[in-house]
Amino acid sequence: MNSVDLNSDMGEGFGPWTFGGGVDEQLMPLISSANIATGFHAGDPGTMRTTVEYAEHHGVAIGAHPGFRDLVGFGRRHIQASAQEVTDDILYQLGALREFARLRGLKLQHLKPHGALYMHLARDEEAAELLVAHLRRLEPELLLYCMQGTAIWQAATAAGQPVVCEFYGDRDYDRSGSIVFTRRVAALDPEQVAAKVLRACQTGLVRTVEGDDIAVVFDSVCIHSDSPGALGLMQATRERLEQADIRVRAPR
Amino acid sequence: MNSVDLNSDMGEGFGPWTFGGGVDEQLMPLISSANIATGFHAGDPGTMRTTVEYAEHHGVAIGAHPGFRDLVGFGRRHIQASAQEVTDDILYQLGALREFARLRGLKLQHLKPHGALYMHLARDEEAAELLVAHLRRLEPELLLYCMQGTAIWQAATAAGQPVVCEFYGDRDYDRSGSIVFTRRVAALDPEQVAAKVLRACQTGLVRTVEGDDIAVVFDSVCIHSDSPGALGLMQATRERLEQADIRVRAPR
Amino acid sequence: MNSVDLNSDMGEGFGPWTFGGGVDEQLMPLISSANIATGFHAGDPGTMRTTVEYAEHHGVAIGAHPGFRDLVGFGRRHIQASAQEVTDDILYQLGALREFARLRGLKLQHLKPHGALYMHLARDEEAAELLVAHLRRLEPELLLYCMQGTAIWQAATAAGQPVVCEFYGDRDYDRSGSIVFTRRVAALDPEQVAAKVLRACQTGLVRTVEGDDIAVVFDSVCIHSDSPGALGLMQATRERLEQADIRVRAPR
Amino acid sequence: MNSVDLNSDMGEGFGPWTFGGGVDEQLMPLISSANIATGFHAGDPGTMRTTVEYAEHHGVAIGAHPGFRDLVGFGRRHIQASAQEVTDDILYQLGALREFARLRGLKLQHLKPHGALYMHLARDEEAAELLVAHLRRLEPELLLYCMQGTAIWQAATAAGQPVVCEFYGDRDYDRSGSIVFTRRVAALDPEQVAAKVLRACQTGLVRTVEGDDIAVVFDSVCIHSDSPGALGLMQATRERLEQADIRVRAPR
Repeated sequence: MNSVDLNSDMGEGFGPWTFGGGVDEQLMPLISSANIATGFHAGDPGTMRTTVEYAEHHGVAIGAHPGFRDLVGFGRRHIQASAQEVTDDILYQLGALREFARLRGLKLQHLKPHGALYMHLARDEEAAELLVAHLRRLEPELLLYCMQGTAIWQAATAAGQPVVCEFYGDRDYDRSGSIVFTRRVAALDPEQVAAKVLRACQTGLVRTVEGDDIAVVFDSVCIHSDSPGALGLMQATRERLEQADIRVRAPR
Repeated sequence: MNSVDLNSDMGEGFGPWTFGGGVDEQLMPLISSANIATGFHAGDPGTMRTTVEYAEHHGVAIGAHPGFRDLVGFGRRHIQASAQEVTDDILYQLGALREFARLRGLKLQHLKPHGALYMHLARDEEAAELLVAHLRRLEPELLLYCMQGTAIWQAATAAGQPVVCEFYGDRDYDRSGSIVFTRRVAALDPEQVAAKVLRACQTGLVRTVEGDDIAVVFDSVCIHSDSPGALGLMQATRERLEQADIRVRAPR
Repeated sequence: MNSVDLNSDMGEGFGPWTFGGGVDEQLMPLISSANIATGFHAGDPGTMRTTVEYAEHHGVAIGAHPGFRDLVGFGRRHIQASAQEVTDDILYQLGALREFARLRGLKLQHLKPHGALYMHLARDEEAAELLVAHLRRLEPELLLYCMQGTAIWQAATAAGQPVVCEFYGDRDYDRSGSIVFTRRVAALDPEQVAAKVLRACQTGLVRTVEGDDIAVVFDSVCIHSDSPGALGLMQATRERLEQADIRVRAPR
Repeated sequence: MNSVDLNSDMGEGFGPWTFGGGVDEQLMPLISSANIATGFHAGDPGTMRTTVEYAEHHGVAIGAHPGFRDLVGFGRRHIQASAQEVTDDILYQLGALREFARLRGLKLQHLKPHGALYMHLARDEEAAELLVAHLRRLEPELLLYCMQGTAIWQAATAAGQPVVCEFYGDRDYDRSGSIVFTRRVAALDPEQVAAKVLRACQTGLVRTVEGDDIAVVFDSVCIHSDSPGALGLMQATRERLEQADIRVRAPR
């Protein structure tokens, strides 16, 4: 790998509330792609506008980060929504963000669903296929961020919608290649995360919680802006990548 | 006048609830421009999608009908929002509807704010100017529905944003040219409404509540879909206009 | 059976929207227990106040009808909430309704969760037990409406919280005693529903969709206010019960 | 003065978001009365429950802190609501908090509306009188926190509802006795705030922005939990009061 994308969720405040320690402004210059919250799990219109402006200022590519309509649960709780509801909710939020991009003369680079909606589309074939069918009509070049092998990845790949596969720098993997979900309290060690990311970039391997190495395929590294110590993780990761001559840049 | 636009608010249900007697489907074929609710005072994503489809089916031009973020008050209550908040909320909703239009290959014809937001922009110069400044950048051809002489009309006219002036068929006017707001319980008489609209189209005059005639300038007639007996009002009005060889058609 | 309770969901509008044809006022005199929506899936504070007043006027016992926080989905969609979240959401809504009851000097008779929350508590033992533990402390006499044999029924019965078992007059049962969920379009036949309810009251039996008879244990009959033709179903049912000298009255 | 109440707003997070630097836990031991957010401008059910528990742990009296239904605006924006809507919204929220108090065997000490709702009731006589009339029926001993001379103060005093008058330690006053609203960026100086409060307690005087002294009548000192440096302000104020033998304690 000569280059890799670094993505993070941005603009996940709402009204008076900021999120994840309010480090968006410091994280933005370090990443290449910003997933901007679009109102249903977080992100009010004013925050969306300023986050787009901030991304533009730093030359960061922007994408929509829609979630389930669940502010109080931050979109982390699954809602048993139909494929049509899921698709409609995503289009609504996608359009809302697109308007703020349009205001700056920017194009949306990508779509990355949030939290439980990301997982829903990873598993629910009907929803994945319906969403992809709509994206084909709406914007056949919009990049879909997802994990390799998931339902949404399969639907997109089959239909020709371009995907960007993700590697999670701040999450553990198990032997099956799945992410081990843990709500961490303690901050991760920046050097360990950076080393894990660099190794994955250079060798395509990651050590699992069981102790084995497995192969990971990805074009983008995600570090969550709400991981404890996110700023330090991102700084260390970016520095280590650059030291190894791996350029951080958006897929497009 | 050889022709006039007939506009009405559409898609003002939310989730399980329909609005105004659920006559959207019967009203749609009678109008030429649909103001589609965009989620903050009414209108969920699924309703927006199907309302766009229904408008397309009947060849009705579509516009965004954004309101204050006030579902429980149906956007009828004024919220003391800043010019920036008002503008951001409108752009968010405008973009959301645009995405559903885009899905059908349609363009948005117009923007018509709802209820208390409509009145806010009629009076608040700062909000009116900021909104218009954003529309100039976003879409200089988007039509703004408003009343002649209001703050938003002045801001749009000064900046070159095209406007469509409205005449309210189901509201009374006073000597100052203002609408007399009354929450009616009883249904209006269809023939009286139709006669009032026809007279306004043919002579540019309307009888006020004080009993005088005043001049009204307009390109579009609005009949609210939630007026009691809205369907009868619209049918009678359309029929009377057509009998008088005034064609009902969208401004574009 | 000399008497049976008739319950129905009431006050399920929100803001400008009414629900189920707006027949609350006509249904209220026919029932003995009103399940009043408490704001999360439907029911705004004003509607709650007037629904309590209306129930009082007709001598109908009142209970809280809390749902998942999902207005757009009307609380019909499951949300993957923790036992603590479910309990907190129910207590919040229970207290809100209790305040309006208190204003009229009334006591709440019962608690009946709505839609997907009703089903959640029927299945999720942890949530059922946590809720019941809280009710024991809060109000050990509050009746819990539920179906016999469910998780919430078991938790309540084990802890001594009094339950009222329900029979669904407008739903079909299968051989396992479960309700067959169908979103009906067509109205049910009032005489058939009334006959089914009367038979269940007199014999404890209901014919399943497979054609067998199974035993049903219940103290209350529910007919949903949003069933197509709900008013006719309720009228026929009440009439038939009274003709058979089965009095309609609240459990307390 | 031998004693004075110290009150602050508590539990003003929502879902994943905390507020004001997340210093609730450190502020709680310093105050005597907690105004607990009740869901419409901030405060989800889980936060309400834990905030009540935390107040109980520190022997702090609890009250409801209801706001306009405006999460995104944090209840700081005025909503043009009717007297009945305002009253219904307050009762709903009051009841919700009361349920969590009831769970701990606690009584609510007081009601203090939030932000724009506080100001609304300070000015709108109809809303003030309707609310007070409802409180008379609901709970004639519930303390109303307000400013002397306002509409709500007058309505409560006339009807016999007990009031607690407030002095704002972290706000400036003008010659008319009104608070000068400024959204501060910089933190206030703790010693200056503490000295101002102590002087007001000892002499009943406060220096205005014009430079005069005016008389202030109060039973409780409010320091906002979201004032920059709120914790330092509260610590310094409490310390100074105790050094001067003025005990910090709740009105009851």
